[in-house]
Amino acid sequence: MGKAHSNALKTLPYMVYPPPAVPRLAAIAGRDARAVREAAERYGYAAAYTDWRDLIADPAVTLVDNGGPNDLHAEPCIAAAEAGKHVLCEKPLARTAAEAKRMLEAVSRAAITHMVGFNYRFVPAVRHARDLIHDGQLGSIYHFRARYLQDWLADPTTPHTWRLTQASAGSGALGDLGSHVVDLARFLVGEPTSVSASLRTFTTDRPGGKVDVDDAFVATIEFSSGAVGTIEASRVATGNKNGFMFEVNGSGGSLRFNLERLNELEVFSAGSDGFTDVLVTSPSHPFMRYWWPSGHIIGWEHTFVHEFAHLLESIANGSSVAPYGATFEDGYKAAVVCDAIASSARERTHVAISY
Amino acid sequence: MGKAHSNALKTLPYMVYPPPAVPRLAAIAGRDARAVREAAERYGYAAAYTDWRDLIADPAVTLVDNGGPNDLHAEPCIAAAEAGKHVLCEKPLARTAAEAKRMLEAVSRAAITHMVGFNYRFVPAVRHARDLIHDGQLGSIYHFRARYLQDWLADPTTPHTWRLTQASAGSGALGDLGSHVVDLARFLVGEPTSVSASLRTFTTDRPGGKVDVDDAFVATIEFSSGAVGTIEASRVATGNKNGFMFEVNGSGGSLRFNLERLNELEVFSAGSDGFTDVLVTSPSHPFMRYWWPSGHIIGWEHTFVHEFAHLLESIANGSSVAPYGATFEDGYKAAVVCDAIASSARERTHVAISY
Amino acid sequence: MGKAHSNALKTLPYMVYPPPAVPRLAAIAGRDARAVREAAERYGYAAAYTDWRDLIADPAVTLVDNGGPNDLHAEPCIAAAEAGKHVLCEKPLARTAAEAKRMLEAVSRAAITHMVGFNYRFVPAVRHARDLIHDGQLGSIYHFRARYLQDWLADPTTPHTWRLTQASAGSGALGDLGSHVVDLARFLVGEPTSVSASLRTFTTDRPGGKVDVDDAFVATIEFSSGAVGTIEASRVATGNKNGFMFEVNGSGGSLRFNLERLNELEVFSAGSDGFTDVLVTSPSHPFMRYWWPSGHIIGWEHTFVHEFAHLLESIANGSSVAPYGATFEDGYKAAVVCDAIASSARERTHVAISY
Amino acid sequence: MGKAHSNALKTLPYMVYPPPAVPRLAAIAGRDARAVREAAERYGYAAAYTDWRDLIADPAVTLVDNGGPNDLHAEPCIAAAEAGKHVLCEKPLARTAAEAKRMLEAVSRAAITHMVGFNYRFVPAVRHARDLIHDGQLGSIYHFRARYLQDWLADPTTPHTWRLTQASAGSGALGDLGSHVVDLARFLVGEPTSVSASLRTFTTDRPGGKVDVDDAFVATIEFSSGAVGTIEASRVATGNKNGFMFEVNGSGGSLRFNLERLNELEVFSAGSDGFTDVLVTSPSHPFMRYWWPSGHIIGWEHTFVHEFAHLLESIANGSSVAPYGATFEDGYKAAVVCDAIASSARERTHVAISY
Repeated sequence: MGKAHSNALKTLPYMVYPPPAVPRLAAIAGRDARAVREAAERYGYAAAYTDWRDLIADPAVTLVDNGGPNDLHAEPCIAAAEAGKHVLCEKPLARTAAEAKRMLEAVSRAAITHMVGFNYRFVPAVRHARDLIHDGQLGSIYHFRARYLQDWLADPTTPHTWRLTQASAGSGALGDLGSHVVDLARFLVGEPTSVSASLRTFTTDRPGGKVDVDDAFVATIEFSSGAVGTIEASRVATGNKNGFMFEVNGSGGSLRFNLERLNELEVFSAGSDGFTDVLVTSPSHPFMRYWWPSGHIIGWEHTFVHEFAHLLESIANGSSVAPYGATFEDGYKAAVVCDAIASSARERTHVAISY
Repeated sequence: MGKAHSNALKTLPYMVYPPPAVPRLAAIAGRDARAVREAAERYGYAAAYTDWRDLIADPAVTLVDNGGPNDLHAEPCIAAAEAGKHVLCEKPLARTAAEAKRMLEAVSRAAITHMVGFNYRFVPAVRHARDLIHDGQLGSIYHFRARYLQDWLADPTTPHTWRLTQASAGSGALGDLGSHVVDLARFLVGEPTSVSASLRTFTTDRPGGKVDVDDAFVATIEFSSGAVGTIEASRVATGNKNGFMFEVNGSGGSLRFNLERLNELEVFSAGSDGFTDVLVTSPSHPFMRYWWPSGHIIGWEHTFVHEFAHLLESIANGSSVAPYGATFEDGYKAAVVCDAIASSARERTHVAISY
Repeated sequence: MGKAHSNALKTLPYMVYPPPAVPRLAAIAGRDARAVREAAERYGYAAAYTDWRDLIADPAVTLVDNGGPNDLHAEPCIAAAEAGKHVLCEKPLARTAAEAKRMLEAVSRAAITHMVGFNYRFVPAVRHARDLIHDGQLGSIYHFRARYLQDWLADPTTPHTWRLTQASAGSGALGDLGSHVVDLARFLVGEPTSVSASLRTFTTDRPGGKVDVDDAFVATIEFSSGAVGTIEASRVATGNKNGFMFEVNGSGGSLRFNLERLNELEVFSAGSDGFTDVLVTSPSHPFMRYWWPSGHIIGWEHTFVHEFAHLLESIANGSSVAPYGATFEDGYKAAVVCDAIASSARERTHVAISY
Repeated sequence: MGKAHSNALKTLPYMVYPPPAVPRLAAIAGRDARAVREAAERYGYAAAYTDWRDLIADPAVTLVDNGGPNDLHAEPCIAAAEAGKHVLCEKPLARTAAEAKRMLEAVSRAAITHMVGFNYRFVPAVRHARDLIHDGQLGSIYHFRARYLQDWLADPTTPHTWRLTQASAGSGALGDLGSHVVDLARFLVGEPTSVSASLRTFTTDRPGGKVDVDDAFVATIEFSSGAVGTIEASRVATGNKNGFMFEVNGSGGSLRFNLERLNELEVFSAGSDGFTDVLVTSPSHPFMRYWWPSGHIIGWEHTFVHEFAHLLESIANGSSVAPYGATFEDGYKAAVVCDAIASSARERTHVAISY
């Protein structure tokens, strides 16, 4: 994640041209002194710290970009905000909605610019999908169905990591992948009002430790607009490497998307003969004026270029990153929905969403 | 449906050759005297009745094929069984699980051969999917996700029919499309143990009447094997004409299917590089020895040829159509699951499946 | 092929309803007495002959359907025409253009209805493609590219058949598959004016005999309209079972088709955002009013139902099957183009088409 | 193109880590003084020149990267080589084979490292295709078919540019797109021995000038291995933005590729059930260890990162960029084949390839 963020910060100034602001790579922090020194050299960070408090204390740092494990989101972000620094935090914002709420309160008090790294809002095809929906081209939305499928845990001998412990990660596929699904549900279709769900851990013992988080969840979702949907995430869906797929059906048309083909959006308009496979690479498509001639596809990593450009512009303007970027409020709301999913699975009832 | 069934009965004797039995088209019944006479002439039925009781009383009739509306399933099927006739009933077997149970009891008492028209079990790619799963090639099953999407009700001005009234249809998308989804879930993955669900009717007033059944449902599903899934059906999913799609993920591999491309099955085997798009048309594939050289696709209607061939063979052998064909017990169990989905949506809790 | 034709003749009367004429299966002929008797019984032919002359002499026979090997096309078709019978001949019409010309002259003199079995003109998506082109929706046609790929000869141990001998087959992939390609080129884009080509036989010795026909050909093609294209056929294109794919590009739009997904046509209209995947199954699409509700796909074999319905209607009206069906003139012209392809490969020059 | 090259030079040092050499952006040259100054500032070039001779004379420049129009390839490249600088030249190497030959002779005499910008050799899926073929996994190659389709000239009102004049561009689609096709044909299948072809210019008058180059060409191709194929390029193939598609069929398997989905390669292995859609994004795939976790796709621009990394490594080692990179010899050979295509179209004969 540090590599993807560093690449975006270095690419942005000449690709998003003229840039809203030119980022200087002031400092980087990490627990392993040697690794952090090497990363500083590799990417050109001016300083390297092994304690994140030193990074926040560095006066050259005015924006803190938190890509640490989930249990290192709250404390550094709150400290950064209290020090008056702008904050970008990777998703999920926190391990629980309660933790996210404390973070949201801190950044709100501090009146700094805050953002959560829901980078898929910055996929050109996803932004195009949102534009089509908000322009009314899909009419009333009836259905949203999304699944984020990976398979790196399908093999029971895949070793344990911090991502498999509730204490450090908060949850499993739910927070890691499901938070993306919930964020795009809200970004595209609006506020959910209730969920019902099941969670599963298929392998509880792995080399290196016990697993106490979910491998997968499945859920129904109801929206305030009346739409209904299914959402799902799994790390054991064999054959799927990074398959984040969503579909939207409305009275006026439908959309289909797959992150493994992120330059495409399938669009159906009522009255037409079928789904049109739109290659979202023309200069008139969102973000694509920064890149290449029509038909030349871009990669996953450029979602971060778009995300950082948007953040820098918000900071330059002193404005919120909303509605196109995700604020800590969006991060908190995603956490509330994820908690409701876990609660529904535990209590075996539908659970109403209440922020 | 009468056209599809008649075509299958007429095609079977020379395509499935030698046939297990040669059907004679003894009689047809329908409420409109002129229409039923015309159909008899068109397809070559020896007799035409306007009262189904006369058809059952006809000694030339030894197998009753019930393709009537859902509120005309129970009484004729029970009467036929009591008259010692074999019975094929279109899906859903009944409007409710209670009604289905009465039918199951009647056919069990009568000791005749009974079948429910879950014809998608007889799609070559679906049977191939089942064979792969039962041969263990997918290992432990983790996920099942299926959706049956149509859009003929997306236009609010589409007129009312018997399918939109609870009294005649029992339910909406749930019974009509969802019963297919539930049947394949059971056929492929095994017995479900619980569901949680939401139902929606987006248009309640249509030209010709009020709608008191669902346009769509969404549900989670848990299986006795530990697998979890999402299932869904809709008649307002714009852009989808007959899109019955399912995916199965197991520890050893995965499958993907779409009825709009019913000659294909995408297969992933653990260790391989991606999904293989199998054109299920070689003579070694299920049912395909009846048809054409490899690569020559067949149509939807031939699922009925396979279904009838299987039924006739069971009748000839005096054996049950299980496990490859759906019996009235399967029809009853699908009705129990559909009732549980409706109940979950109403009660807003998970509902355990109990047959 | 006999199975596919018999099936079409038996299906047509109730599917294409009311039928333009009701075919009676008067007689069947074949060299193996036992096989032809069994076929007569299986499909319900009234008489069975081992000499095709007897079939033609049978007064109950008014339409002769010639599905024999290529070296049994000319003599029986000419005899049938001279006896005043209508004639349908499978493709390629003859082994050479010269032979085809004699056949064309015979049917023209006899003033009977004649047709060549270029059944792919009767795929709903292909007819839809032709309608779009002829309605001007593709503007001026720039490009046609087509390839008919099979792989049943990729294995060098596949045994010899009559199809691999020039004396009986005329040519290899060129006549068998290439004639289909050439016919659709003419059906969709118009008359070709020249070709340049290469032929290859990759395996010359097979179990059972020497191969003296081509395994594959590749060619460029120029049309009188100014369009240019590539055409190709192969029986050694591994992984392709029955992959007849074509693309058309015009100033106003483009089309893409694949016989392995014969219910679909990809359509691009200038000004739109991409190709639309049209499921050619709605009742408003060509031929589809005979079949099922929208979204229910049909199979390869129903191209013959459409072809026979068209032929019977032409016979009933005493009219030519042109322009939607292929006459012997079309069969002759396809043979001229195929001969020109072979000649170009031999002479290593562009060859002008001259009928 | 300057943007894509600059981005690659700036990205390479931290992505291909540790880099074989760290490029310094010493100087940039262009005819428009203001534009070249702005570009120098934007991308960080130390010097900006309006005369390429000054750039070559700059002692800080040790590698010259020529991305100018085709009529500015020969003279600067030759001058650079004679000045002892390494040279990278964009494709097509020259306007004619004769011009390319002079360039090849110059770089050979100078004994510097030379490369032609056939960047598609550096698409991971293309390199993977080459590896599979060279490992023998496709057996004997029977067929190669490739088409490079764009549509930016389909609109007759698209204005004239230097690309549409023979004097500056050499040829049209043939040199611009066809040279890529020819290069991959050679890279994947080996040396061609003959071609036959047609060229077309559909619009000869455009706003701003006459067009005297081809809009499109079609050709057959024969290889020394015995394989045959079709190749084609067009700038008027409506609906195709950057559609470079190729297919290879061999006795042991087949491949399919489309540049608009450049992270995928469809692979068929003899004996398997169908084509497998391989997402070429795992760290074990060519070049992908530089990037992201499996399933995270990369964009078109990263072909240049791979290309430059390969070039820098060759320079660092004093070795040729062959066989994975294209040398000026490859550029010359592609020009010979392109000239033969034009000659075949003019002379209307097959033309033998002779280097």
